[in-house]
Amino acid sequence: MESFRMKMLEVDLNEGRAEEKSISPDLIRKFLGGRGLGVRLFVESINPNVDALSDKNPILFSTSPLTGLPAPSMVKCSAVTKSPLTGTILMTLVGGYFGTGLRKAGYDVVKITGEAGESKILQIKNGSSSLREAKEYKGMSTSNTQKYMKKRFGEEVEIACIGPAAEKGVKFSSIIHDDYVFGRGGAGTVMGSKNLKAIAVSGDRNLPILLKEEFDVARRNIIKKYSKSKSLDKFSKYGTAGVVNAVQERGILPTRNYQEGVFECADKINGDYLVYNYVKDKETCFGCPVACSSISVVEKGRYSGTVTKGPEYESIIMLGPVCGVKEMDAIIAANQKCAELGMDTISTGNTISFLMEAYERGELGEETLEKIEREPVFGNERAMMELIGLIGNRIGIGEILGEGVKKAAEELGFPKLAMHVKGLELPGYDPRGAKGMGLGYATSPRGGCHERGLITEEVFGKPEPVDRFSTEGKGELVKETQDEMTILDSLGMCVFPLHNSKVSISDLAKLFEATTGLETEVSDLWLAGERAWNLERIFNIKAGFTSEHDVIPSRFLKEPLQKGPSEGSTVELDKLLKDYYRERGWNDRGEPEKEKLEELGIVAFFNF
Amino acid sequence: MESFRMKMLEVDLNEGRAEEKSISPDLIRKFLGGRGLGVRLFVESINPNVDALSDKNPILFSTSPLTGLPAPSMVKCSAVTKSPLTGTILMTLVGGYFGTGLRKAGYDVVKITGEAGESKILQIKNGSSSLREAKEYKGMSTSNTQKYMKKRFGEEVEIACIGPAAEKGVKFSSIIHDDYVFGRGGAGTVMGSKNLKAIAVSGDRNLPILLKEEFDVARRNIIKKYSKSKSLDKFSKYGTAGVVNAVQERGILPTRNYQEGVFECADKINGDYLVYNYVKDKETCFGCPVACSSISVVEKGRYSGTVTKGPEYESIIMLGPVCGVKEMDAIIAANQKCAELGMDTISTGNTISFLMEAYERGELGEETLEKIEREPVFGNERAMMELIGLIGNRIGIGEILGEGVKKAAEELGFPKLAMHVKGLELPGYDPRGAKGMGLGYATSPRGGCHERGLITEEVFGKPEPVDRFSTEGKGELVKETQDEMTILDSLGMCVFPLHNSKVSISDLAKLFEATTGLETEVSDLWLAGERAWNLERIFNIKAGFTSEHDVIPSRFLKEPLQKGPSEGSTVELDKLLKDYYRERGWNDRGEPEKEKLEELGIVAFFNF
Repeated sequence: MESFRMKMLEVDLNEGRAEEKSISPDLIRKFLGGRGLGVRLFVESINPNVDALSDKNPILFSTSPLTGLPAPSMVKCSAVTKSPLTGTILMTLVGGYFGTGLRKAGYDVVKITGEAGESKILQIKNGSSSLREAKEYKGMSTSNTQKYMKKRFGEEVEIACIGPAAEKGVKFSSIIHDDYVFGRGGAGTVMGSKNLKAIAVSGDRNLPILLKEEFDVARRNIIKKYSKSKSLDKFSKYGTAGVVNAVQERGILPTRNYQEGVFECADKINGDYLVYNYVKDKETCFGCPVACSSISVVEKGRYSGTVTKGPEYESIIMLGPVCGVKEMDAIIAANQKCAELGMDTISTGNTISFLMEAYERGELGEETLEKIEREPVFGNERAMMELIGLIGNRIGIGEILGEGVKKAAEELGFPKLAMHVKGLELPGYDPRGAKGMGLGYATSPRGGCHERGLITEEVFGKPEPVDRFSTEGKGELVKETQDEMTILDSLGMCVFPLHNSKVSISDLAKLFEATTGLETEVSDLWLAGERAWNLERIFNIKAGFTSEHDVIPSRFLKEPLQKGPSEGSTVELDKLLKDYYRERGWNDRGEPEKEKLEELGIVAFFNF
Repeated sequence: MESFRMKMLEVDLNEGRAEEKSISPDLIRKFLGGRGLGVRLFVESINPNVDALSDKNPILFSTSPLTGLPAPSMVKCSAVTKSPLTGTILMTLVGGYFGTGLRKAGYDVVKITGEAGESKILQIKNGSSSLREAKEYKGMSTSNTQKYMKKRFGEEVEIACIGPAAEKGVKFSSIIHDDYVFGRGGAGTVMGSKNLKAIAVSGDRNLPILLKEEFDVARRNIIKKYSKSKSLDKFSKYGTAGVVNAVQERGILPTRNYQEGVFECADKINGDYLVYNYVKDKETCFGCPVACSSISVVEKGRYSGTVTKGPEYESIIMLGPVCGVKEMDAIIAANQKCAELGMDTISTGNTISFLMEAYERGELGEETLEKIEREPVFGNERAMMELIGLIGNRIGIGEILGEGVKKAAEELGFPKLAMHVKGLELPGYDPRGAKGMGLGYATSPRGGCHERGLITEEVFGKPEPVDRFSTEGKGELVKETQDEMTILDSLGMCVFPLHNSKVSISDLAKLFEATTGLETEVSDLWLAGERAWNLERIFNIKAGFTSEHDVIPSRFLKEPLQKGPSEGSTVELDKLLKDYYRERGWNDRGEPEKEKLEELGIVAFFNF
């Protein structure tokens, strides 16, 4: 049997040169693809101490052997780089059609180094690549960039591009593909620093499947499990917005910069309210029958005509309750504005809510607020809209807010009001009523993030509820969740179907084996997940992060929630961390023990 | 030889039915196509006294035998309906690809009557048509409507759609196709009243050319004249924005609601300023080598990321100097906002400038301004932006402003400050320094409009300068200009190449003859132009318009400009009109004499 091959395109923007490399089967076996493979190829390409915005910081786009195949939800493309927001490793994913497009264009991975002299587009088409002039798109919003690029390059290209925020160096700028987002941590900012406005991919390469019959069996099995899931039907209808109620019921819905855990107007921002008043259409990523993405339209009032994908749960919470905003119209408009400017909604909302709390405490000087027209108090949706514009365009206070909440709060003198971990703005679950989530925030390699391991047992009571206030067994639970997520990210599969159906890691092992011809046990996948996770940890340690950085804001440690179903609780982080380090096979300083690294086969990356 | 055929699709939205009709060769000979043919088919389909927003008002989309052929600039599609803004006949045109798309889809004309029960899309594809569900696009901005429609109907469809303003009944709503606009007079409002969100056309019909060799000769001759024109080269570079300087130099650049004719910051809004600071790319209509459309981007400041087609001259003037606004950033952002909401920029800017003048005179009550946050004074670009949103979404004062400047000024009590003719807001040339333009405004069938006859001899001194302050010979000049424009609109040719090259009506007669096989002398085209013009006049007379409505605002008649190159001048309209009526063969009441109508062969339409 022929062996499974993956190809990487290495683009050097300094020299304007590209080279093709093949990826060894051993790397595919050990890192699968997507996140794992991207991380592995990234860490060998960078000194962890370089400035994230220097031309020495590469950015990799990495797909999996499954991406774009006719099995459901195999859609994700990873981007791996060093985060200019946090200084940690940054892995971020996008859905839609970009990963599929990249593979069809001839490459499984693209590594981009250096910095173009002038704004450029990387075009990859049927196995060949070129750098194209991009000055006509400079400063364009993301939807217009894609619109005018399609007029030039053809409607069939799939595009990943940045917006004005990234061009201006806003530290939490995203990369936008269609309506989908490589969010968090500033992957867009890195592209901006490289003068790379966009990547356009197209082609018609046949994607290899080595054992076609086995693939078909594995695929049908997964489809059958999808079709039997009522939970997935519900998820199709409501998308991520459907979880607002569950989070509110547990009293962990972040409100007014996490001062509270219950939002008084949750019924005006939940899934039902969105679906019945705003959702006009559904969209779906490549080959996914779930179509969880909503297209929402504001029909009345000031924001009439606004259209947005989603908004997703996180955007609703961060541009809604976290800023005290209760109008769904404004949440949709803010979400759309962030997308057009190319900024992460979580970081944007979180940073604005910090400012609102500082302002309400009367602790901001007048000169700080000089260019703000609208009073930045919780619930003032128009102030939020104004601040989004100021941040994205780096005007007045937007200049410092665009550095992220950690730096902004330090510079303005209120570090304790900044709700972040390692500089990454926290998302939409209050850990005081979901302690495993708190541990997850503390240990996520890119900083305070829910996507590196959402403890569904705590937050939704799924698949089986656990005591969300207890610290018992949370080290093991969080580790498992993180490793499982790493497997999915490496295989390029969307997490939602797994959370909402009986599809198992074992099903995915069969699919991977059938595709690649590489013998794959369930345990191989678990090891691959753990391996990539540890490799990300190693990068961070080498970049200067220690266990001291595995913290969450003191608000969660010392200030109990004052009301609601999680009233009175705080997070016992030390206990959780100790448990977690032990489960991970890490020492008390949070460093992987040599035995663990030997077991994972990555000892060479760590300097004992 | 086979005879040239044109086909009309008649769609009845009441019944959800469509029928195909053939158009007689006699009509093609007498009305050519586009505007003339559309007007002819319209007047037989309506009682001129019906309410423009009732289901009895049809809207016709009409192309010419030349539309979409491989001769340059044969791009225009006409829309004909009764205007809900003015009550006159309304003929408006769009460039781009819609006319070509409609013909390739199988029809030369589409007539739409009735009213759909729920929001619908009319899809026409390769000779068949269907009404499709449109509720998912309700309330969507125009760019998003097109984006999501293309996802559903395929990237190859050409779309004409309305935005939120039309859905809410703003009386000067436009129909948007790609970045192009069927502007003025509320054709979009009529579509909105019919619950018709969009028309999507696609197909691959071969467009007939009956005498191919003759066509090729005629076509090459025109192309040669294009290529020899330096003026056209300049027009390619600057587009319509290039005329700002000429208009300023003549002191007829409308400023602060036409109180002045010289704008102190003209050098910050002219073609050079636009091209060197904002224009990133060029766009072109089907088969046009001129590519006069600019794509402009705001890169810095509050409006960063904004992208717009143009802005065209009229939009620059009406959203700039007429409102006292000098920031090109804001003009671009306002232009884009109007496009997204689907509103005519001339009417929008004109109406806002009326409000500003009324406000500055201290004549507006507080309750009128209740929902306005920003002071509506000349030069306050942010107030202008706010008012655009209020009008498009019909909030607060936007409710009455959305009725158009005539009604708004009457309702608010200051009819003399409303700068309109027959209810259509005036555009960007002050007639006090271009008296033929004043006559053109007074007699344009759709109300105060420059497009029904731009007197280039006065405004740009082209092709030969005339004394712009004189009334001598203006009746004849205006009549000729109007008839020439009607020929072009009927042939579907863009006017700009004719203004900027030596292409002549005789060249177009040859092209039309070669295409249709119908013997066509130059005089036949001139007669066709005059015929259609008179037919529009007849419609208006039957709808209740008399010579009393052939007026321009008293400001132009009684208040001389106070400074600049047109200082001291007013318009002697009575003298101009008398001369014009005589040239037209109309009586003193502005009604066509029987002899004239017999000469034109349309006596049957007038009730003597």
